Amino acid sequence: MSTTSEVSAKPEAQGREVGVAILGHGTVGSEVRRLMEENAQDFAHRIGGPLALRGVAVSNPTKHSRTVPEELLFDDAMELIARDDVDVVVEVIGGIDYPRQLVLAALNAGKSVVTANKALVAAHADELAEAADKAGVDLYFEAAVAAAIPVVGMLRRSLAGDQVERISGIVNGTTNFILDAMDNTGASYDNMLAEATRLGYAEADPTADVEGHDAASKAAILASLGFYTRVNFSDVHCEGITGITADDIEAAKNAGYTIKLLAVCERITDAEGTESVSARVHPTLVRRDHPLASVSGSYNAVFVEAEAAGRLMFYGNGAGGNPTASAVLGDLVGAARNKVHGGRAPEENTYASLPLADFSVVPTRYYINMRVRDRAGVLAELSAICAKHGISLRTVRQEEAEEGARLILFTHTASEGDLATTVKELEAFEDVLAINSVIRLAE
Amino acid sequence: MSTTSEVSAKPEAQGREVGVAILGHGTVGSEVRRLMEENAQDFAHRIGGPLALRGVAVSNPTKHSRTVPEELLFDDAMELIARDDVDVVVEVIGGIDYPRQLVLAALNAGKSVVTANKALVAAHADELAEAADKAGVDLYFEAAVAAAIPVVGMLRRSLAGDQVERISGIVNGTTNFILDAMDNTGASYDNMLAEATRLGYAEADPTADVEGHDAASKAAILASLGFYTRVNFSDVHCEGITGITADDIEAAKNAGYTIKLLAVCERITDAEGTESVSARVHPTLVRRDHPLASVSGSYNAVFVEAEAAGRLMFYGNGAGGNPTASAVLGDLVGAARNKVHGGRAPEENTYASLPLADFSVVPTRYYINMRVRDRAGVLAELSAICAKHGISLRTVRQEEAEEGARLILFTHTASEGDLATTVKELEAFEDVLAINSVIRLAE
Repeated sequence: MSTTSEVSAKPEAQGREVGVAILGHGTVGSEVRRLMEENAQDFAHRIGGPLALRGVAVSNPTKHSRTVPEELLFDDAMELIARDDVDVVVEVIGGIDYPRQLVLAALNAGKSVVTANKALVAAHADELAEAADKAGVDLYFEAAVAAAIPVVGMLRRSLAGDQVERISGIVNGTTNFILDAMDNTGASYDNMLAEATRLGYAEADPTADVEGHDAASKAAILASLGFYTRVNFSDVHCEGITGITADDIEAAKNAGYTIKLLAVCERITDAEGTESVSARVHPTLVRRDHPLASVSGSYNAVFVEAEAAGRLMFYGNGAGGNPTASAVLGDLVGAARNKVHGGRAPEENTYASLPLADFSVVPTRYYINMRVRDRAGVLAELSAICAKHGISLRTVRQEEAEEGARLILFTHTASEGDLATTVKELEAFEDVLAINSVIRLAE
Repeated sequence: MSTTSEVSAKPEAQGREVGVAILGHGTVGSEVRRLMEENAQDFAHRIGGPLALRGVAVSNPTKHSRTVPEELLFDDAMELIARDDVDVVVEVIGGIDYPRQLVLAALNAGKSVVTANKALVAAHADELAEAADKAGVDLYFEAAVAAAIPVVGMLRRSLAGDQVERISGIVNGTTNFILDAMDNTGASYDNMLAEATRLGYAEADPTADVEGHDAASKAAILASLGFYTRVNFSDVHCEGITGITADDIEAAKNAGYTIKLLAVCERITDAEGTESVSARVHPTLVRRDHPLASVSGSYNAVFVEAEAAGRLMFYGNGAGGNPTASAVLGDLVGAARNKVHGGRAPEENTYASLPLADFSVVPTRYYINMRVRDRAGVLAELSAICAKHGISLRTVRQEEAEEGARLILFTHTASEGDLATTVKELEAFEDVLAINSVIRLAE
């Protein structure tokens, strides 16, 4: 220890107590409660007043009576929310309809809300934001996207002086684990899904993850924040990873790419200068030297391109009880500070109201893996089909296959519409035996 | 365009005008002014009221008369600051003493301040924070550390509900460019410094960068924020990169490392459980599979380890007019929002007041590169010297050298004090011909 410095007595936090209700006591809720207790003194100093836990609402109180004092357990969440001494409500239940009722009730009663519920925020952001504005309270949801990686705060505050052009995120740990394992081992999708399930990275029913729905919720939230435009879950074009084969991974590797499930939110400017917003989730070939390519295992990362800031990347644990609790508690400190000192967090802001880009105009590049009849002239005819739709080919690779020849095409940038039409026509062409895969390329 | 969505008319921003004074019109100041103008409508909507530029203070107004209207040019910064219609002052001059006077004058006059000045904040944070608190205004300085990478906001807000354990940052682009170039080419420090100068990555007098002073300012700011403890520039142990040789880079490479100049801010808990804070800047061997190892060229990155969040990394442009302007404008939007809607940014908070760790107790690992007499038994004697001080060796590699043998040691973790004593004793040992380098390892 330095001899010139001494531990000074910590001054007592001066402000009023902030009452907290926690709805849900699963992996996240129990961590939030534990850390609130364990770090109570620190939180009091950071907020300017102590947090006081008024209660934890659970469906089955007896299940939690060993960790939570009986008098703090509520089976009626509405009763807990309605208490006069509750200032901030933390919603960590999950699902949509029931938490929606609870969060609306809390906001309408003038309580600030912190939620980790991406599905709820992606589906009902407008209704929730309206209720928060009307009551003049805060709605925080940092944990809804990529857990402890502070992308919500970054878009709401840090980049508030910049113009975001594109957000490309690996925002689902399950699918990144599976794709990374396929890339590392050469194994099939089914085998690596089984491995992810065994290790607890995938749920018993993995649909929401592997079909991209979870990532689509996050894409909706990121696009809404980044472009000041209401983008809902249903606005997001969504494709999952169930069709990705070991063959695709290998072809990508040979060409210097890895395959990631990306949530891409992009400002598109057409020839007339009209701006629109595209939000989509799909497997994507990412160059191996791109920062997103090195995001391994179940880690998440969000890559942002902004006019002045340039390229930024945020990387970390995108799921799990502790990282999610970290984000929830960061929000809770913010909401509680505002209760003590006044002021409000940046509210929902959709002033730009950009139109949604029709998916067919989105610019992209394709990787096409197909099997063709092995005869002279077939390549020339296929190229002609591409050229007819304005698609130019960047690289073409032909290999022997068991039946016919395997053809791997990388196109230059074109519109989704033109590329889709081209693929359809290729599929119908008599010398094409099968289109094995079509995967988009990043940027 | 989607047919169901239409461009809705942008509603007019309702709140009052926020008057802005910019002090300085160099690379950053001119970008701030340009982007403020160009994106005026967006800013008005994000703030809830329009920004109005009241003036730009410069030492030589005629130099700027082609880009700034004459009536907005002030050669007397104090006069501009004092105007009643200035609400927020943006300080982008650089230096310490003169901007310190200006910033204090602004805060004392009740104006919020946004500064990009790391040297000022690292040297005088307490005085500035006190003035801001007394006047009840905001002091923002996101741009002071790693430009557009929002580490200040992340520590002040996003991680406010967590306990930061360690911050390891590549926060100086010049030195990262030089070290990365040495790693890529095998060239000497002097050659790559010359290259950095030629390309504009190093200033004519590179001292502040290559000796680590710039990184030390940032380390002081990061440690203060991360540990709620006042850490000043003078508290930071600082070593630069001028002694790093091509030989070191190669030895590091062979052992699976790359060399980075890291700013390390760490919470240290001793055997009795007493906590202290260490802030230091020194060349560091980073394993090639660590996320910081892949930060190339002049990019910056800050790696944070927190109790609940786990490992987070933030990556981007750490310098330059545009990225710095992005951070300044993000702060400006925040400060202006508070002027329109009320509320304050999280103020300076040093409640924890942890003591500074004496450098000798900091735990670390060493890489030692030395030349020894090539005789039987020398290795055993050197190992005995290490063991005497409690230093155990992790790997030992002996190679032929022009004179004697080259010995490369990697130690296990020990205290700085014990390691330094050991190196001193090794140096004095008759069979040691020269200690070429001693470099610390990350973690």
